[in-house]
Parts: sequence; C-alpha cells; structure tokens
Amino acid sequence: MNRLERVSSWLKKEGHDAAFIHTKENVFYLTDFYTDPHERLMGLFLFQEQEPFFVCPGMEAGQARSAGWEHDIIGYGDHEDPWELIKAELTKRNVRLDSIAVEKDSISLSRSEQLKQASGGAAFVSAEETLNQFRLVKDEKEISILREAAKLADYGVEVGVAALKEGVSETEVLAQIEFELKKKGVQGMSFSTMVLFGEKSGQPHGNPGADRLKKGDFVLFDLGVILDGYCSDITRTFAYQSISPKQEEIYETVLKAEQAALQLSKPGVRIGDLDLKARGIIEKAGYGDYFPHRLGHGLGISVHEYPSMSSANDTLLKEGMVYTIEPGIYVPDVGGVRIEDDVFVTKDGAEALTQYPKELTILK
Amino acid sequence: MNRLERVSSWLKKEGHDAAFIHTKENVFYLTDFYTDPHERLMGLFLFQEQEPFFVCPGMEAGQARSAGWEHDIIGYGDHEDPWELIKAELTKRNVRLDSIAVEKDSISLSRSEQLKQASGGAAFVSAEETLNQFRLVKDEKEISILREAAKLADYGVEVGVAALKEGVSETEVLAQIEFELKKKGVQGMSFSTMVLFGEKSGQPHGNPGADRLKKGDFVLFDLGVILDGYCSDITRTFAYQSISPKQEEIYETVLKAEQAALQLSKPGVRIGDLDLKARGIIEKAGYGDYFPHRLGHGLGISVHEYPSMSSANDTLLKEGMVYTIEPGIYVPDVGGVRIEDDVFVTKDGAEALTQYPKELTILK
Repeated sequence: MNRLERVSSWLKKEGHDAAFIHTKENVFYLTDFYTDPHERLMGLFLFQEQEPFFVCPGMEAGQARSAGWEHDIIGYGDHEDPWELIKAELTKRNVRLDSIAVEKDSISLSRSEQLKQASGGAAFVSAEETLNQFRLVKDEKEISILREAAKLADYGVEVGVAALKEGVSETEVLAQIEFELKKKGVQGMSFSTMVLFGEKSGQPHGNPGADRLKKGDFVLFDLGVILDGYCSDITRTFAYQSISPKQEEIYETVLKAEQAALQLSKPGVRIGDLDLKARGIIEKAGYGDYFPHRLGHGLGISVHEYPSMSSANDTLLKEGMVYTIEPGIYVPDVGGVRIEDDVFVTKDGAEALTQYPKELTILK
Repeated sequence: MNRLERVSSWLKKEGHDAAFIHTKENVFYLTDFYTDPHERLMGLFLFQEQEPFFVCPGMEAGQARSAGWEHDIIGYGDHEDPWELIKAELTKRNVRLDSIAVEKDSISLSRSEQLKQASGGAAFVSAEETLNQFRLVKDEKEISILREAAKLADYGVEVGVAALKEGVSETEVLAQIEFELKKKGVQGMSFSTMVLFGEKSGQPHGNPGADRLKKGDFVLFDLGVILDGYCSDITRTFAYQSISPKQEEIYETVLKAEQAALQLSKPGVRIGDLDLKARGIIEKAGYGDYFPHRLGHGLGISVHEYPSMSSANDTLLKEGMVYTIEPGIYVPDVGGVRIEDDVFVTKDGAEALTQYPKELTILK
C-alpha cells in the first residue's frame, strides 16, 4: 500500500470523508513535491475511494508533475480565488463531506473557515497523529538520504573546528560553517546553527554572538542541514587549548551517557528506557539537576518529529526509526557539554548516522 | 497614545472585549520583544480597560522584561498547560469575553479552539487589518533602523559583485554574500537570497543553483537582511562583460520605470498610480506582457506588509510609509532585469533608503 492509499484506508476505517493536508512536510511526504508557497494556498484533498487532487499556485503545477504527482491538479492564478475552484471540484465530485481530517495544529482559523464553507459545513478532526505515525518508520530511500544529510552535518563540525582560533567570534565561525555547507548545495540549515564558547555553552538554547574564543573554553557546535527534504542534527563539544578536571568530568559523563543510550538502542526496547539509562548515568555522577531536557527527538522531514525520546514514552523501538540521542550537562559559570548523534534502528541494533569522533579532544 | 493604547481604543470603538495577539511580528510591534518560541505558546492579551498581560515560556520571561514589557507576564514551564493558567487569569479578572480579536490568518485551528474554551465560548473577529493599518506609517526610530538595514542590503550587493568571476556558481556567490552579512551581525536574511545568472534572471522566482557565470549573462541579485527586527530588500541587475542591444533596451526601460515611480512618490499620491506610471513606461516600450507582478510591497517588521503597491490600491501615500519599488521585465531566452529600491515617504517627496548605483553597469 503506498502512502496515499494508507491515508485513504485510514479515512475509511475511521469514517472520515476526506483529508485536507496543507503543510509542506506532509505534502512532500505524500506527493514527493517539496515547496513552500508561503501565503499562497497549497493542499492535498484525499478521499476514501475517489482519486485525490492537489491544489497549488498555477506556476507550480509543472514542478508538482515533475516531482511525480499523477493525479488531478487544480492550479490557480493570483487573481483567482482557489476556494471557488475547490468548491466547484467538490460539488462536481458529489462527495458527502461531514467530517474532514486536517492538520489542526497548523491550519489557520481563516483557512479552516474557508474549507468549512467550501465543504458545506464539515466538522474537523485531527490528521496529525496519524501522519506522524506513518512517518515514524523510514523506508530505505529515506534512510539513504538521512545518511547523506548526516555526513554533511559531520562536515559542518569539521569546518567549524578548522575555523577556530584564539579571538575568533561565535558568529564568524557560524558563518564559515554555513558558507561551506551552502557551497555543497544543501537546501538550507535544518535550524539556526549554534556555535557557543565558554560559559555560554552552558545555555541549552544559547544564541551565538560576538563572544570571542579563549583558552580553557568549551566550544559547542549544534547544527544540521536539509538535504532532499530530510534533516540532520549533530552536536559536538570540544575543549579549547586546555581543560579543567571539572570540565573533563562533565565531558566524560555525557559521553558515557550518550554511548550507553546508543548501545541500548535496538528493536523492542522501550523508548523511555533510553532516556532513563542516560539520565541514570548523569544522576549517578551528581549532575542530574543539570540535564534539564529529554534525551532526543525523532528526525526526518522535520527536524523534530516522532518519536519523542522522553522518559515517559512507552513506544517500543522498531527497525527504521530514526532519532537523536543528545544528553547534556549545563553548569552555570563552568559551561556545558552536549553530544548528539543521529541514530537509525537496524534489524538487531542501531547505527549512528553521524560519525564525527566523540572522544574528548583538546584543540590546540 | 502608545501602541497598546491604540489597540485598546480600537477594541472599545468596535465593541470587542479583548485581543489575543500571537505572531512574533505583532508581538514585537506591541511589546518591543522579538522572539520566536516555535511550537510553544506566546501571546498578548489586550482589553478595553484592563491592563494587558503577556503569556510566554517561563524561560523567556526575563528577556521580555529586559525588552521593556512592564505589565503582567504569565510564564509557564514545559510541564504546565498554559491554557489552564490563561483560563485562571481570565476568570480572576472577571472580564466578559463575547468577542475576541485574533490574527485569523495565522492562529491555528487548535489554538483557536483552546482560546474559545478558555474564554467561555468567545466568537472571533480579525485583528489583522487593524494591526496592518497601525504598522503602515513608521515612526522615526523605525525609519532609522530601516535605513541601517538598507545600507546592509547595499553592502550585500557590493559583496556579490566582488565575488563574480567567470565560472563561479550562483550558490557560491550567494554563500559569500550571506557569509559577509552574518559577520556584520545581522539577525538573518529577510528572505532566501537570490543570485541568478543568464536566462535564469528571466524567472521572477528563480532558485539559485549550480549555474555558472559566463560572458553576456545578466546577473540579478535580490536580497535583504533583518536588523533589530526590521527588513530590507534590494534588487540590482548587472551585465557581465558584454551586453546585447536587446538586453540594454530592457535594462534602460526598467530603470526609467523605476525612477519614474520613485519621482512620483510623495504624500497625497494614489498608490496605484505609481504602479500604473511604471507599467505605462514598460508597456510603451513593448514589454507590458513581460512585467507580470505588482510594482512592490510595504516593508517593515515583515518583508511583505502594507501597503501593497498594486494598480488597484486607492490608498494615498502618507509621510512615513516605507515600501519597495521594483519593476521588472523577464524575457524567456534572453533574461530578466529587476531594479528595486526601499523607499521612504518624506514630508514633501520620497527618499530611497537603498543607495547602490543603478545606472547600467557592464562588469569586467
């Protein structure tokens, strides 16, 4: 069953008449067409039995075809109201529309009102949980793209390390990393690149700025790219020129926690147990209060998707899941260490897609 | 009357009980606090008479205070439901909430349902038109930031021109521009930087790629930065090493149209007439079919805001309005030229904030 058929089959099972899918991530997942039409309307109508149709700005219809979309396209011009065209198409198809599944967390109130009107007053249910579940297990093609995206994340760290020198600023190093990655033709960064020096590495969500590198600083890189629609996400932390015993203890504790969670990863293991395993090691070392976030997050078309790698997640790991493992310890006035890999669950274990070395490195 | 008071006064006049403002642009406009909390809830509650309050992730409350927010803040932790806290606050205040103004084009259906529930079933009206109108005329502080942002856009073109050499690719030049601008400490680019060579310059929304520069190409740069919350946006087109008579005719026609619209800009002029003026010049030269878009757009906290510089806009120009003038001619198999300035309406005329030279330049 292909992805479109899975949605139709779900609609049938749940008794919903149609789905209207509009986010660029889920449209890409279902059509192979990746685009961001900004304020213009784009969306996919799926039904229990009838053929789906795709609505997009007319000037993008050709690209949707090239991406492989074989069903109907309703392309509209800037002077047309796409909702009039949608209403006409729905009327022509004569489908009963009492219940439509939409991405409720992102469809705007205005669009939902237009859809309600065009459908003759349908009620809305959420399509998000279902699509998140569909995207949870990756196929071979997805894994191979994620692998390439992870290699580029490794390369980003390599560029960052090479750009370090006494007195360089965080934003200068950041600009160098993004410059080299864009030259490699990535679609974009999967989130704002983080380069943090010294005490600032102790802020889990710090913003790079004009801070300048000095001896004894931790240097934390957190970055990723979007390649062919898929994201990578790596974190590495280095010591610059020297390291204190306290910093070394923090580093080795995080590394041990990261490796333990990676080693535990295999089909059948409860996801929450990975977080608990890493957290246990950090707590035992006395740093439990300094690890304030979950172990990681799923990774794919979105940089944060299912599964959530939190202690409360009872889902069992399954072959094809892809997620990050990224424990961290953040100590005010000292600094922070986070080590993050992108991990892919194999038939009987797991493999880190990111490969940049993790052993403690004191850069000269 | 300050910005918050203007909203309260509008609520009173229209008979709406409250406004809930959640987009980062309008929150910044009303609070001076610029942040993007991604999937976490952030929003501003405004009333006719009562003090406003601001809801944000607890870890951002300090930054909101530093930015100057003096009223109540409801900060929430990751394990709390902010809607419960909002409901409690609204109940405590004992405000009647029959009608709430929201940004209907961007608030999600989920959030609107949560707000409806927390407010005891309020109906929603749109706050967007009103806020767009408030933001239409800029004050002195806004103009001075927009002026600095425009200077950085000029600098981006300068960097791009310096990076040109035979065989260089569009993405290489783009990466160099963004690299140098990020070193200058800009918050980010205001949209995806465009560097287009040769026939590709003939696509109004072309994507930079691996195309390499060769003699006789048009080179089109379209770029802008975000500085202290405000956007700039410039387009310049150059000929590389040589130019054909046809290319020269296109360039001179666009330049004439751009300058005519700039000269016509002053308080009291109908906005649509600027578009018609530029369009008339292009039509007279026989290229009317090759100028498929409006003359420009307003510019401020958003890179596209009011006023829309389209022929249908009957609004009269007013001192303090800021917008782009960007006519273009796009001829398949030849290439395209667009020239764009950011323009500020003065007391008796207008001033271009972007200053990079516009006369036809054949780069060697």
